[in-house]
Amino acid sequence: MVGGGEGAFIGAVHRQAARLDGEIELVCGAFSSDPERSAATGRALSLPAARCYPDYLTMFRAEAGLPADERMQFVAIVTPNHLHLPVALAALEHGFHVLSDKPATVSLEECRRLAAALRASGRLYALTHPYAAYPLVREAAARIAAGELGTIRKVVVEYVQGWLATPLERTGHKQASWRLDPARAGPSGCFGDIGVHAFQLAEHVTGLEVTEICCELNRVVPGRALDDDGTALLRFDNGAHGVLLASQISVGEENALTLRVYGEAAGLEWRQEEPNTLLVKRDGRPAERIRAGNAYLGPAAQQATRLPAGHPEGYIEAFANLYREFAAAVRAFEAGERTAPALPGIREALRGMAFLETALAASASPAKWHRLEAPA
Amino acid sequence: MVGGGEGAFIGAVHRQAARLDGEIELVCGAFSSDPERSAATGRALSLPAARCYPDYLTMFRAEAGLPADERMQFVAIVTPNHLHLPVALAALEHGFHVLSDKPATVSLEECRRLAAALRASGRLYALTHPYAAYPLVREAAARIAAGELGTIRKVVVEYVQGWLATPLERTGHKQASWRLDPARAGPSGCFGDIGVHAFQLAEHVTGLEVTEICCELNRVVPGRALDDDGTALLRFDNGAHGVLLASQISVGEENALTLRVYGEAAGLEWRQEEPNTLLVKRDGRPAERIRAGNAYLGPAAQQATRLPAGHPEGYIEAFANLYREFAAAVRAFEAGERTAPALPGIREALRGMAFLETALAASASPAKWHRLEAPA
Amino acid sequence: MVGGGEGAFIGAVHRQAARLDGEIELVCGAFSSDPERSAATGRALSLPAARCYPDYLTMFRAEAGLPADERMQFVAIVTPNHLHLPVALAALEHGFHVLSDKPATVSLEECRRLAAALRASGRLYALTHPYAAYPLVREAAARIAAGELGTIRKVVVEYVQGWLATPLERTGHKQASWRLDPARAGPSGCFGDIGVHAFQLAEHVTGLEVTEICCELNRVVPGRALDDDGTALLRFDNGAHGVLLASQISVGEENALTLRVYGEAAGLEWRQEEPNTLLVKRDGRPAERIRAGNAYLGPAAQQATRLPAGHPEGYIEAFANLYREFAAAVRAFEAGERTAPALPGIREALRGMAFLETALAASASPAKWHRLEAPA
Amino acid sequence: MVGGGEGAFIGAVHRQAARLDGEIELVCGAFSSDPERSAATGRALSLPAARCYPDYLTMFRAEAGLPADERMQFVAIVTPNHLHLPVALAALEHGFHVLSDKPATVSLEECRRLAAALRASGRLYALTHPYAAYPLVREAAARIAAGELGTIRKVVVEYVQGWLATPLERTGHKQASWRLDPARAGPSGCFGDIGVHAFQLAEHVTGLEVTEICCELNRVVPGRALDDDGTALLRFDNGAHGVLLASQISVGEENALTLRVYGEAAGLEWRQEEPNTLLVKRDGRPAERIRAGNAYLGPAAQQATRLPAGHPEGYIEAFANLYREFAAAVRAFEAGERTAPALPGIREALRGMAFLETALAASASPAKWHRLEAPA
Repeated sequence: MVGGGEGAFIGAVHRQAARLDGEIELVCGAFSSDPERSAATGRALSLPAARCYPDYLTMFRAEAGLPADERMQFVAIVTPNHLHLPVALAALEHGFHVLSDKPATVSLEECRRLAAALRASGRLYALTHPYAAYPLVREAAARIAAGELGTIRKVVVEYVQGWLATPLERTGHKQASWRLDPARAGPSGCFGDIGVHAFQLAEHVTGLEVTEICCELNRVVPGRALDDDGTALLRFDNGAHGVLLASQISVGEENALTLRVYGEAAGLEWRQEEPNTLLVKRDGRPAERIRAGNAYLGPAAQQATRLPAGHPEGYIEAFANLYREFAAAVRAFEAGERTAPALPGIREALRGMAFLETALAASASPAKWHRLEAPA
Repeated sequence: MVGGGEGAFIGAVHRQAARLDGEIELVCGAFSSDPERSAATGRALSLPAARCYPDYLTMFRAEAGLPADERMQFVAIVTPNHLHLPVALAALEHGFHVLSDKPATVSLEECRRLAAALRASGRLYALTHPYAAYPLVREAAARIAAGELGTIRKVVVEYVQGWLATPLERTGHKQASWRLDPARAGPSGCFGDIGVHAFQLAEHVTGLEVTEICCELNRVVPGRALDDDGTALLRFDNGAHGVLLASQISVGEENALTLRVYGEAAGLEWRQEEPNTLLVKRDGRPAERIRAGNAYLGPAAQQATRLPAGHPEGYIEAFANLYREFAAAVRAFEAGERTAPALPGIREALRGMAFLETALAASASPAKWHRLEAPA
Repeated sequence: MVGGGEGAFIGAVHRQAARLDGEIELVCGAFSSDPERSAATGRALSLPAARCYPDYLTMFRAEAGLPADERMQFVAIVTPNHLHLPVALAALEHGFHVLSDKPATVSLEECRRLAAALRASGRLYALTHPYAAYPLVREAAARIAAGELGTIRKVVVEYVQGWLATPLERTGHKQASWRLDPARAGPSGCFGDIGVHAFQLAEHVTGLEVTEICCELNRVVPGRALDDDGTALLRFDNGAHGVLLASQISVGEENALTLRVYGEAAGLEWRQEEPNTLLVKRDGRPAERIRAGNAYLGPAAQQATRLPAGHPEGYIEAFANLYREFAAAVRAFEAGERTAPALPGIREALRGMAFLETALAASASPAKWHRLEAPA
Repeated sequence: MVGGGEGAFIGAVHRQAARLDGEIELVCGAFSSDPERSAATGRALSLPAARCYPDYLTMFRAEAGLPADERMQFVAIVTPNHLHLPVALAALEHGFHVLSDKPATVSLEECRRLAAALRASGRLYALTHPYAAYPLVREAAARIAAGELGTIRKVVVEYVQGWLATPLERTGHKQASWRLDPARAGPSGCFGDIGVHAFQLAEHVTGLEVTEICCELNRVVPGRALDDDGTALLRFDNGAHGVLLASQISVGEENALTLRVYGEAAGLEWRQEEPNTLLVKRDGRPAERIRAGNAYLGPAAQQATRLPAGHPEGYIEAFANLYREFAAAVRAFEAGERTAPALPGIREALRGMAFLETALAASASPAKWHRLEAPA
């Protein structure tokens, strides 16, 4: 693991997710740019001191030198955004598979470099978009792919938070500080942090691609260098329309990621804060309340579920699905298979960065619609 | 009453709303452009045959000729949109106050003529935006006006229906037919029918005015002459941002008008389908679930409520608030008072039409932002 | 109308309900035992002074002496409970149909006298249990009657309020005072006020009869002469089991009447505070969210609905269904028909009183089960 | 671990819960009474063959013989109920701490033997009641303990499932079979399986003790030897009243454990299926929607939470709280501390068994109230 020292939020989530199914063991880490803190974090995690590295390059070199059955099998990147690319490049260069937090990089150009390096390395790469790994999101995607909604016409995806409604970044709050600092977060705040999740979710569940964007990004709290709120109108490749709302200044909201998709025949509604319920709405019939853990769900949802219906699963379980599936992909790779895992990967990385760059350009432009170029 | 013959939806609502508080009696009507149907509707309503008029002009002339204590005291206009102006003009000309269904007219130019005629007549005019008359919408407006939310930063208003997800207008469905016919509905379908409600609600509750619009209107079901779906980005006069979603093709949705407002200090959420609950969200504190009928509500909400908490009131009661208040305004007028009622009136009519015309122009334009000129 | 002077809650509800559909006109009343207040209430309701009577006997005599097309056609009784019997007897004696608030009387013996007088009079009698008149309660009853749930196994009905969590009756609160006064309310407080509604709802929706009761009534707030909380275990005539919870000391609850019924094949859940939704739950399938106002509902629900789906109807509309149907029954009666209306009537009155008396006896007894004798 | 072979539900939950925080490692097991299946389960869990034992006695003997830093530190018992006692006794006898699934034993007499053995052994014992380990259940308990609700007056606890609405036990369904078999489940089905959870939750959150019970247990599905449904009226030691509903035949319900507590000053409502929300209801004020993960929560809730607000935690996380705290208790024990952990333990085991036996006796008796003797 690179990143995830004390005080970090997402590093701890990655570790819990990795542990849940008992298939993955944390064996080493460069948890902080401060070697002392890295060592302290490793100690707290009961790692041998020798494998608590002062920096990621040292780690990759050292681990690459270990016998195959001892060295780490893949690296999880959980640093602030600006380090995603250099760490990933170094990992690939040393032969390690990469599981990276999102966004993949801080620019589309960086992401293209990553894609090229990945191709050259022949290794595995996945991006942690955990929301798409919830059982009922997979059910939604499966139903849409099976045609249950008919042609998709309208998509409304929202990711609404309120934790940045005050200038938290000026209080020394670690999470807020780097997320609103262009040097570490990249050129977008809110859209880079949560807008890309919403974008990935919308494309993933519908199986459609966004082709045009109209966008307004806002810096609501005075003094911010990056957006903390924004809206994008979307046009999809099948002619469907969409709206993406992302906000971190909607005071009182927690982590309100919601998705609504309407087709010719039916509509779907899912809310991350109550992730075990999926509403299916139909014309002239009562809406159905799909619930996780039931035998009537399709295989994609069932394989992503650990408990019987009514025993709520949450964010860690969704995240753990990514880890479990990445671990399976690594095992398959080591067994000689070369099929890419069905996880968000470099394609989603490229599309996410293209979305961000187009959104930034569109927001700055007086023209309404802007083409989202499919990245090569 | 003009309009509201059999098969009409909104006419029956107006009549129930008018009756609820026992202050208004329906005394005459021109319920249909077909004199036979008008008479039949009047009979079913136990009106004397003599006051079931074949057309509205005949009615205004005849009623104006009755002694003051016998003639109708105001007219309710519940026709398709294209008749709102001529009926209102004729009513005012004959000295009758007007309570009109929305939108006020089919164009801003028509609305300006209405405004001029109204000024000249000295009569009362109100527009039936019932959603703003729900007790908890009034509570929301009162709290915002009192500063409880602080400066407003973000407004999300949605009005989402699914009943036009199929080409219902080609099946002889009366409501669908005129609403999608430019000759009767005016230049907008979805936005003219429900978008203006959302717009009025957002401005009314926040006390802000929209100054700029970015808009996309869609004709989703093939063959339609008018929009059946659309989204507008909004900029308000205090710098706040907003999004307005309106749709009639969101299959499975019923009448999902929702409003979310976020200020510096707190946020509000209200859903028309469960109108007796209002959520107030705050940073660092639990959200509060405000419920209609409680003594802790402000006077505006309490005066708009008829029942103790937990006894749900609905759409008819909200609508009846408009009638009750218009009746009070008529009584005050007849007692010599000349203060305008606190109901949506010609100002809201003008703003609504300006919104519609700007939205149509903005949707057709490649430019992103379009100024919503404050109507004179 | 007898009762319903200023400060009364239920009288105003009756009047709104009566007015809503334009089929009933309030023509006279004895609104208070205080003739001054009766006259004042009548004035406020725009009644002619001559028909604002000082007491109910005077009213019945005077109205009975009017020509048939002038006199009142039925009487609504909205007094405190202890007057229900004498007023109803007097009304029947003078030839008037009776629409009475619940409970029918203050004892089973009184109720038997009422039943005998009713039989002798040949007039119509109905009891205002408005909750059973909600569209989706009727849908629930229709589905159960049609066998959709299979054999009923379990019924959970709750009526939970919190408004009497403090000794409100000692503050001069009019509603609280008479409801907790044995001389006016009868021998039961909470069960007499709201428990009978829950009981009627359970029997009505399931079509079953309770045959045995185990009961505990509590006087939670010190100093009360009547119960303010209680629970009854129920056994039904088909072998099903049930639980009835009623409480007026559950602080913070408003009017939380809920019904859950489980059969062999499916279950139902309905909540009065959100009355336009009915959940149908099935084994191995998603629950269905039935919504009022939809074309997929059965005729009983549709006839009880005034608005399209998504336009919430509430308590007044449910109550108005009773008035509309009683008015239809009166018209049919006057046209010579002698079929009883499908409304709660003397049978429900007798069963309600038998339930109350059995519950009181059971609560006082050390024995668990007590037979609920079917009233003759 | 004893029990938890393939096909078992709760064994897998225990393992996930144990792994989540990285403080516990599964080192050995006797997973099935069939040595082959035990070995297969161990293999699937990557245990060395030598530590996959054919039976629990062999395991305890072998592990007790290992050096202190190699042998297992405590045993988790996840077998059917009838084995809880013998396994626990054997474990204690060999010096192992015990974390046992509930119910502790199949009779109060067995439980007293367990208590005696535990006292003699000086080891640690905890019982997995995971519902009381949800963050917001702990918040509820803390608020009640702090007096926020005032004197408790009323408790309604429900545990409603539908999975046994059909005779699943006759289809070879493993979970259903043993739970309805008196030889393996003990003398109660539904109450033993889920009623004890509801009982423990009610006592735990309120800090009160039940002193009297009135109970009806039902065997709804024909042919069953054990109850599959039941209700108990409760009296608490402070004079409060309560109702406990448990059912496994409420078709369509999943795992609907809910708790409502009303005091003089406020009420609380919590629902396990949406465990991250807690409603606090007050007289004359809006209800508050408490949400997990917020800084406004007390320390008990915060220590039981892993994620920021809006990132749902679920059943596994609640269960993991028990494991984490038991691990801490074991570490403290080994460091020489002798304070009992704040987890459900032998006291709750004894009370649970006393509740079950009293409920069974009360259900069979014609008398209403039965004393729940505080176990010595």
